[in-house]
Amino acid sequence: MSTKKYSVGVDLGGTNIKIGIVSEDGKIIKKDSLSSKADEGPEKVIQQIKKAIKQISNKSKVKVIGIGIGTPGIVSSKKGTVENPPNFPGWDKVPLKQIIKKEFQKDVFIENDANAAAIGELMYGAGKNKENFIMITLGTGVGGGIILDRKIYRGELGAAGEIGHITIDHNGPKCNCGSRGCIEAYAGNRYIISRISKDISNHPNSLLCKMVSSEGKELSPKLIYEAACNKDDYAIGIITDVGKYLGYGIASAVNLLDVTNIIIGGGVAGFGRILFDSFEKTLIERVMKPFKSRINVKPARLKNDAGIKGAASLVFYKS
Amino acid sequence: MSTKKYSVGVDLGGTNIKIGIVSEDGKIIKKDSLSSKADEGPEKVIQQIKKAIKQISNKSKVKVIGIGIGTPGIVSSKKGTVENPPNFPGWDKVPLKQIIKKEFQKDVFIENDANAAAIGELMYGAGKNKENFIMITLGTGVGGGIILDRKIYRGELGAAGEIGHITIDHNGPKCNCGSRGCIEAYAGNRYIISRISKDISNHPNSLLCKMVSSEGKELSPKLIYEAACNKDDYAIGIITDVGKYLGYGIASAVNLLDVTNIIIGGGVAGFGRILFDSFEKTLIERVMKPFKSRINVKPARLKNDAGIKGAASLVFYKS
Repeated sequence: MSTKKYSVGVDLGGTNIKIGIVSEDGKIIKKDSLSSKADEGPEKVIQQIKKAIKQISNKSKVKVIGIGIGTPGIVSSKKGTVENPPNFPGWDKVPLKQIIKKEFQKDVFIENDANAAAIGELMYGAGKNKENFIMITLGTGVGGGIILDRKIYRGELGAAGEIGHITIDHNGPKCNCGSRGCIEAYAGNRYIISRISKDISNHPNSLLCKMVSSEGKELSPKLIYEAACNKDDYAIGIITDVGKYLGYGIASAVNLLDVTNIIIGGGVAGFGRILFDSFEKTLIERVMKPFKSRINVKPARLKNDAGIKGAASLVFYKS
Repeated sequence: MSTKKYSVGVDLGGTNIKIGIVSEDGKIIKKDSLSSKADEGPEKVIQQIKKAIKQISNKSKVKVIGIGIGTPGIVSSKKGTVENPPNFPGWDKVPLKQIIKKEFQKDVFIENDANAAAIGELMYGAGKNKENFIMITLGTGVGGGIILDRKIYRGELGAAGEIGHITIDHNGPKCNCGSRGCIEAYAGNRYIISRISKDISNHPNSLLCKMVSSEGKELSPKLIYEAACNKDDYAIGIITDVGKYLGYGIASAVNLLDVTNIIIGGGVAGFGRILFDSFEKTLIERVMKPFKSRINVKPARLKNDAGIKGAASLVFYKS
C-alpha cells in the first residue's frame, strides 16, 4: 500500500460544494460535488458539508490525515470561524472548524477561498518557487491572496488581501462593497457582463453583437473570448480594457507591498494572452521605477480543480 | 553619571542635514543642522554627514552606542545602500552604512526616511501601543511606512510602503513617479500649491485669495490653514478635499492589508482637525464593512524633530 499522505479538500461555494481527496503532491484521486443549499441557512450547509465528506471517505480507502476547507467570507483560521460569507443567508459567525473537527475527529483547517487558492498555487502551482507573490482570482468577484516569505498574509483579523477592492477611480461605478471604482467593479464577471449588456447595441456590426442577437448566445466571458479569438475588435477591446483596469489597481498593490510576482487565476483569466499582455503592459507602465524590471506575471497553474486542491493543500501547508 | 543609552540620529534631507543626540527614551539632548550640499554630488554629501556627526559628538560627553540615518531613496537596510534619492543628483547606489561605519567605528543603521518616521512613532510616538499601523508622512511628497507585528515591513527589496503612489484615479493628474492620479498628486505639498495657484483667481472673494493678492503673502499649506481657521470656505474646501483624496487611497491600503490604525504626520498634517475629520469620514465610508468600526486615525506625536528622533530610534529598535 502507498505511504503517501492524503487530505480531503472542501471547496464551499454559493451553489455547490466541490470536494476531493488529494495526495500530498497535489493529485486528486477522487472527487465529488454536492449542492450547498445555501438558501436553507448555515445548519443545512453544514449538513451538506458533512454529507460530502462522508460520501467521499466511503468511496476511498486511503488514509486521510486531515480536512481543509476553503470558504467565502471572513475567516479566522485560528479560531476556525466563518463570518458573513456573501450569498450565504443567515450566517453571521459560524465556528465551522470546531463543528467539522468534532464530527470527524481529524485535524481541520479553514481558510478564506481566495487565500486557499493562493496557498494551492504556493504548494502545487505557479508559486512553487516563489518567496512572495500576489494571487488574483478573477471570477464573479475579484479575490486575492498575498504570500509573503512563503506564508499567507492574513492581517489583523484575517481579512487581508482584498485585491478586488483596491480603488482605481474614486468617482467610478458603484461596487458591491459600498465603495466606488474598485477593481472588482471593472474586472468582476458580473460587472463586465452588465457593462457590455448596456453597450453592445452601440456595436451592431461586431461579431460579439451578432453572436448574441442573431445566434441567441448568452453573453459570457467565454463568448467574449471566442469573439476576440475570431478577431472581433469590439471583444478584443473589452478584454484589453479589463487588463488595463487590473493593471491600474495592482500597480497600487505593488507600490505598497514591494511584491512583483503576480499570479492570475479564475474564470476570467481564461481571457488568455490578450488579457495578460494588456495587464502586464499597464502594470509596468504604472508601477514605480525600481519595480518595473522585476514585474513577473504568470497564469495560475491549478485550473478547474483549484478550489479543491487549494483547500486540500491547507492540511499539508499547516502540518 | 547617567547610565542612559544615547544614539546619534541623522535626518538627511535635500536641503539640510538635521542631526541630534537622542536618549533611549526619545529625548533630544543636543541638536544641530548643516547644509547637505546635495547639488555637489554624493561625495560632498557624505563629507557633510561626517562633519555633522563629528561636530555634534564634540559638543556632548555622553557615550553614543550607534548612529541611525534616515534618508530619501530606496534603502537596503541589510546591505546598507541608498539608491537614487530624489533631489540628490549623481547618487545611483551608495554604500552609506559601510562608509559611516568605517569612519566612526560604531554600529550604523540606515532606513528610508518614511520608514524611519514610522519606527520613530512605534518607539516613542502614537504607535507605542500598537501592533500594526500605517504611517503617512505628508510633506512635499507623500511618504509611508507599514508596521506589522511591531516590525517595519520592507518588502522584497526594501521599497515597500509607497503609500503616496496608490492611485485614486487612473485618469488623474500626472504624478512625479510617471503614473497618474497617485495620492501624492493630490495631497503632496507641491501639488496642492500648484493646483491652488491655477485656481485661486476663480475665488477672488476668498480670504485666501486676498491674503495672496492684496497682502502679498506666499501661498503655502500654513497660509491655507490660517485662512481656514478664519472660516474661509475656499480654504476649508481645499483641506477637506485633501482629506477625501487621502481617504480614497488609504481605503485601498486598509482593504489590502487589514490594518486599521492610521498615523498621520508631516507638515501638511498641520491642516489639523479639518483634514483629519474629512479623512476619517471618507476612509470609514470607503473601506469594506468589517473594517469600518476598527478604523482609528491619530496624528503623529513626534513633530518638528520627527526626522532626527526616527533616525535615532533605529539604533534602539535594532539593538
